[in-house]
Amino acid sequence: MIVVMKSDATSEQVDHMVKHIQELGLKPQVIVGTQRTVIAAVGEERVGLVEALEPSPGVEKVLPILAPYKRASSELKADRTVVKAGGLEVGGLKVAVIAGPCSVESEEQIVRLARILKQRGATGLRGGAFKPRTSPYSFQGHKEDGLKMLAAARAETGLAIVTEVMAPEHVPMVSKYADVLQIGARNMQNYQLLQAVGDSGVPALLKRGMSATIDEFLLAAEYILDRGNPGVMLCERGIRTYEDHTRFTLPLATVPYLHEKSHLPVVVDPSHGTGKARLVPPMAKAAVAAGADALIVEVHEDPENAASDGSQTITPDEFSKMMNECRRVAEAVDRIM
Amino acid sequence: MIVVMKSDATSEQVDHMVKHIQELGLKPQVIVGTQRTVIAAVGEERVGLVEALEPSPGVEKVLPILAPYKRASSELKADRTVVKAGGLEVGGLKVAVIAGPCSVESEEQIVRLARILKQRGATGLRGGAFKPRTSPYSFQGHKEDGLKMLAAARAETGLAIVTEVMAPEHVPMVSKYADVLQIGARNMQNYQLLQAVGDSGVPALLKRGMSATIDEFLLAAEYILDRGNPGVMLCERGIRTYEDHTRFTLPLATVPYLHEKSHLPVVVDPSHGTGKARLVPPMAKAAVAAGADALIVEVHEDPENAASDGSQTITPDEFSKMMNECRRVAEAVDRIM
Amino acid sequence: MIVVMKSDATSEQVDHMVKHIQELGLKPQVIVGTQRTVIAAVGEERVGLVEALEPSPGVEKVLPILAPYKRASSELKADRTVVKAGGLEVGGLKVAVIAGPCSVESEEQIVRLARILKQRGATGLRGGAFKPRTSPYSFQGHKEDGLKMLAAARAETGLAIVTEVMAPEHVPMVSKYADVLQIGARNMQNYQLLQAVGDSGVPALLKRGMSATIDEFLLAAEYILDRGNPGVMLCERGIRTYEDHTRFTLPLATVPYLHEKSHLPVVVDPSHGTGKARLVPPMAKAAVAAGADALIVEVHEDPENAASDGSQTITPDEFSKMMNECRRVAEAVDRIM
Amino acid sequence: MIVVMKSDATSEQVDHMVKHIQELGLKPQVIVGTQRTVIAAVGEERVGLVEALEPSPGVEKVLPILAPYKRASSELKADRTVVKAGGLEVGGLKVAVIAGPCSVESEEQIVRLARILKQRGATGLRGGAFKPRTSPYSFQGHKEDGLKMLAAARAETGLAIVTEVMAPEHVPMVSKYADVLQIGARNMQNYQLLQAVGDSGVPALLKRGMSATIDEFLLAAEYILDRGNPGVMLCERGIRTYEDHTRFTLPLATVPYLHEKSHLPVVVDPSHGTGKARLVPPMAKAAVAAGADALIVEVHEDPENAASDGSQTITPDEFSKMMNECRRVAEAVDRIM
Repeated sequence: MIVVMKSDATSEQVDHMVKHIQELGLKPQVIVGTQRTVIAAVGEERVGLVEALEPSPGVEKVLPILAPYKRASSELKADRTVVKAGGLEVGGLKVAVIAGPCSVESEEQIVRLARILKQRGATGLRGGAFKPRTSPYSFQGHKEDGLKMLAAARAETGLAIVTEVMAPEHVPMVSKYADVLQIGARNMQNYQLLQAVGDSGVPALLKRGMSATIDEFLLAAEYILDRGNPGVMLCERGIRTYEDHTRFTLPLATVPYLHEKSHLPVVVDPSHGTGKARLVPPMAKAAVAAGADALIVEVHEDPENAASDGSQTITPDEFSKMMNECRRVAEAVDRIM
Repeated sequence: MIVVMKSDATSEQVDHMVKHIQELGLKPQVIVGTQRTVIAAVGEERVGLVEALEPSPGVEKVLPILAPYKRASSELKADRTVVKAGGLEVGGLKVAVIAGPCSVESEEQIVRLARILKQRGATGLRGGAFKPRTSPYSFQGHKEDGLKMLAAARAETGLAIVTEVMAPEHVPMVSKYADVLQIGARNMQNYQLLQAVGDSGVPALLKRGMSATIDEFLLAAEYILDRGNPGVMLCERGIRTYEDHTRFTLPLATVPYLHEKSHLPVVVDPSHGTGKARLVPPMAKAAVAAGADALIVEVHEDPENAASDGSQTITPDEFSKMMNECRRVAEAVDRIM
Repeated sequence: MIVVMKSDATSEQVDHMVKHIQELGLKPQVIVGTQRTVIAAVGEERVGLVEALEPSPGVEKVLPILAPYKRASSELKADRTVVKAGGLEVGGLKVAVIAGPCSVESEEQIVRLARILKQRGATGLRGGAFKPRTSPYSFQGHKEDGLKMLAAARAETGLAIVTEVMAPEHVPMVSKYADVLQIGARNMQNYQLLQAVGDSGVPALLKRGMSATIDEFLLAAEYILDRGNPGVMLCERGIRTYEDHTRFTLPLATVPYLHEKSHLPVVVDPSHGTGKARLVPPMAKAAVAAGADALIVEVHEDPENAASDGSQTITPDEFSKMMNECRRVAEAVDRIM
Repeated sequence: MIVVMKSDATSEQVDHMVKHIQELGLKPQVIVGTQRTVIAAVGEERVGLVEALEPSPGVEKVLPILAPYKRASSELKADRTVVKAGGLEVGGLKVAVIAGPCSVESEEQIVRLARILKQRGATGLRGGAFKPRTSPYSFQGHKEDGLKMLAAARAETGLAIVTEVMAPEHVPMVSKYADVLQIGARNMQNYQLLQAVGDSGVPALLKRGMSATIDEFLLAAEYILDRGNPGVMLCERGIRTYEDHTRFTLPLATVPYLHEKSHLPVVVDPSHGTGKARLVPPMAKAAVAAGADALIVEVHEDPENAASDGSQTITPDEFSKMMNECRRVAEAVDRIM
């Protein structure tokens, strides 16, 4: 931690800060510069220290040195994590593909679609049974019935089920059916939910909050890891910016940056990341080229009549074409798919 | 709803869309322009229609006409809502002030501080018993014990208690002690929580999500109102932008804009909105001048040793001075304080 | 400058950095922490040092300590600057008001409007003769003829003329007519223009770029100050964020923050800052409450038929009402208007 | 243009708007909906109409239907533009690579580096002679001497010279040496400069402004095209968002989106787009996978001692490796490189 004093800080203020740093269990080291004094506080840089140092008199700003996350960090665990859930494996040589409708609509729909997706190379099946909707007047999902439909699709195809859980009290029920618990972007900082998923031990797909920084994203993962659940996949799904021609802005530099800072595998969601069906295939290819460990994509046989998210949903034929193209890109970056 | 067809849309595609609009229960009206055809879909503009219209062949974009919220709208209810909770009244002539520490630390602390705040003009007492923290390693609050401390402070001072509830299952317990249930920015789209607060009937202070649009903010309020709870206060607490000299960017135009679109009262939080103690008083004054119905402010007797958020916390003396200044601004805009 | 080494940096890399810092004319001071080594580089923190230090092997990041601007800083010049230009004075006790149409349309229009504005309390007259327009097909202004119309309005009313200059080669011509050279948001980093305005010695109203940080804003002012022109007014006019209900997001915390960091006066533009006429008066009041030294506002007798920016333009009657309201707020914060 | 009237708009207001639309030369078509009246204004949707319609009484909002750009639009010109400048060709089957230092430092430097880059597959040489710098205290480039050094490098290697021009009055001089005139992000809306580059007829590489929308970006291109210069390359170089782990956020969905809306070729700059050397190669690969027509990359033999932008600069060895990797990705998407 580096404490920068104001240019007109008095020596009493510097002395006070030195003492305050010692009381916090750190070792102060004063550096007298040409224009101001800086005090390094050496020791474990625990969360809350900035807040404890900044209000002191004469302080201009406090600069943290260390990343605030630990278990998610590649400094703590150098070997890369591979998350395994049923037939799905994310983080290894093979780029995994999780595909399916936004919402599970009927057993017939999901089983038929799952067969097609499986045959064209998907290894996971996504589908919402509990739907977080911006409006209370939107379709909210089939809930437990939807989970049973997903389980039927898995029985038919062996695809691993990836589905969202929206509340801590639903975790046990959703865990009965799902191979992977998805935590949605809106819930990335729903700490009760993160802890419940952590306690469940079921692998998690954690979506980045739409305005989360990378540190906040990894701290959210930390909540799950800290409960002893090592199976966390980080999913970039686009962030909110001033851009209005796409639903969100999909920043793929997240992929190599997360690979550098963390050992956890990285998934990319080009469907939510763009909000436009025709931008999904090129961004899927770009994600693979950037090093993504998996893709998660919305597919529906009839997007015009899908219960939700039709605008960003591709058809099975578009999915096949996308898979063929992505496979070639994967090989070009020494991955398989 | 306005459907804009592509410039090269075929007449078959236009016909298909006309039929699709009819099937959705709306009345199509075709407008042939010089460069493209536009189809107005007249009727109730329910949520999900954009998603149902956009994937159709030949469609360039779909423009909604109506606001997606209803009960929160000033079109539905013209008279302004005044929320009453204990001694706190928000939305009338008087600008209310909710003040207190970020976290409740001890009964002694909160009772002593409440007395001071009451005496200097606050009408509500804020204080976190359950703390949503970005890091799992931060202080998470005293939980129910903290609520009891707040209740003790109310018993002493009569100040209404405003405190955060973080999970649906906590709503009954928090409601036993609190006059107002605060829903934090991170939980603005935690729909289970919104519904639970709606069902409780306890007045709610709903914080704007840090990247929420105004439509999303009012739709979150709609979740609470839709459960029959009319007591919703909308709290602007700053949004995430590229600015880095303040913790968030506090957009005060939210105040008059919400007053135009909604009948709900508007609260401003200059503490989180700036993240810097010395910017709190000028932004509090600006909020009052912009028409805010209440302020919510972090105050602590010793910010340097506060359990959380010290950087943005003012002292009781700074609070007194701010109150005196705000009172004069309130009078200048024909309010009292 | 603080150089943070990676956790696995070798001692050779630390030694290399120590030497590199010395070669750059700074004094290195090594701080060995529990998890990584940090090297303070003591000395003048000139621009470009971060770029020179960051690429070295073993470096994780470089944290600057000092603000990059000098002449604009309140550390260099503690007394506040008052900019005087004709009858306009910005930075003193009195809150100045610069008002007028977006574009100068005719001499008759501008003279008649100037008389009204003067009578209702404006001290400066704004009006575009050269218009930067997003589209090449928009009205681009009357150019030098427009300047002559402005001069005629000044001759009639004594109002100081504030008008935009868009290119370095226009500076001499615009200076013949204008009391204040306005540099538009799109040109905030047009360095040739900044230098030409600096060389002219004519007072400048520098608008914040729509995605400029405060450091970038003050560095743009520095370009003007560095040429020996002390008369710089900083104008907050809204920034680009994800918000879409207003044209821009107007962050009023800029006002007290700039007052703390710089001695230059601060102007607020609620017209561009909101893009909506009915939000202009409340945000004008809020700006005054936040401590603004001046307002700049778009006024037109017939916004529906204005040559540009009608949506954000108020009428003379709305202006009168706004002035009366702002005057009361100014008094409440110990200013006059 | 669609004019949405307020829910309480009177029939007089609707009549007034119908007349106003007719006076503007458009044909009004009134659509009476269940909750409000909407008026379609059929005809050429010229710039400025929104501003002319929005201030009228009873109007809630105005929705434009058509894109504001014309010559840049793929609707006007369906076949894709290929820009040719010396040996550089951008927009065809081959993905072009423009590489070089941020600043030209010496003739020896640039000639030696150009030889290496040419040999490793670059077809264009970038290098700044005029440098737009955020601070007036930064190195501002060697100006015309720098241009001569670039010309010497071209004489040796045949690489096309891509270099920035910062002011309209420099266009003739820079055109003497450069094959492509680069317009920097800060100058994307410097209209005098755009027009001067348009008049020069020299191919242009137009960088996206750091907070420009796609419409604004294409309108800036329109300024150049409108002067009869068809040779415009659109360069995505990252936008400003709240993300702080990279210098900018690089939104690659821009590439397929621009390809859909415009016939102009698209270049990606992963150096500025990330600001971090080690993120450049993965984002270069991703850009190629997304369909970029060219890359522009900063390369320097000794980034630690580069005159500017060292942090985001790769070495010739890293460049070679990146080229080999990108070449494979290009083939996987049926391009060559």
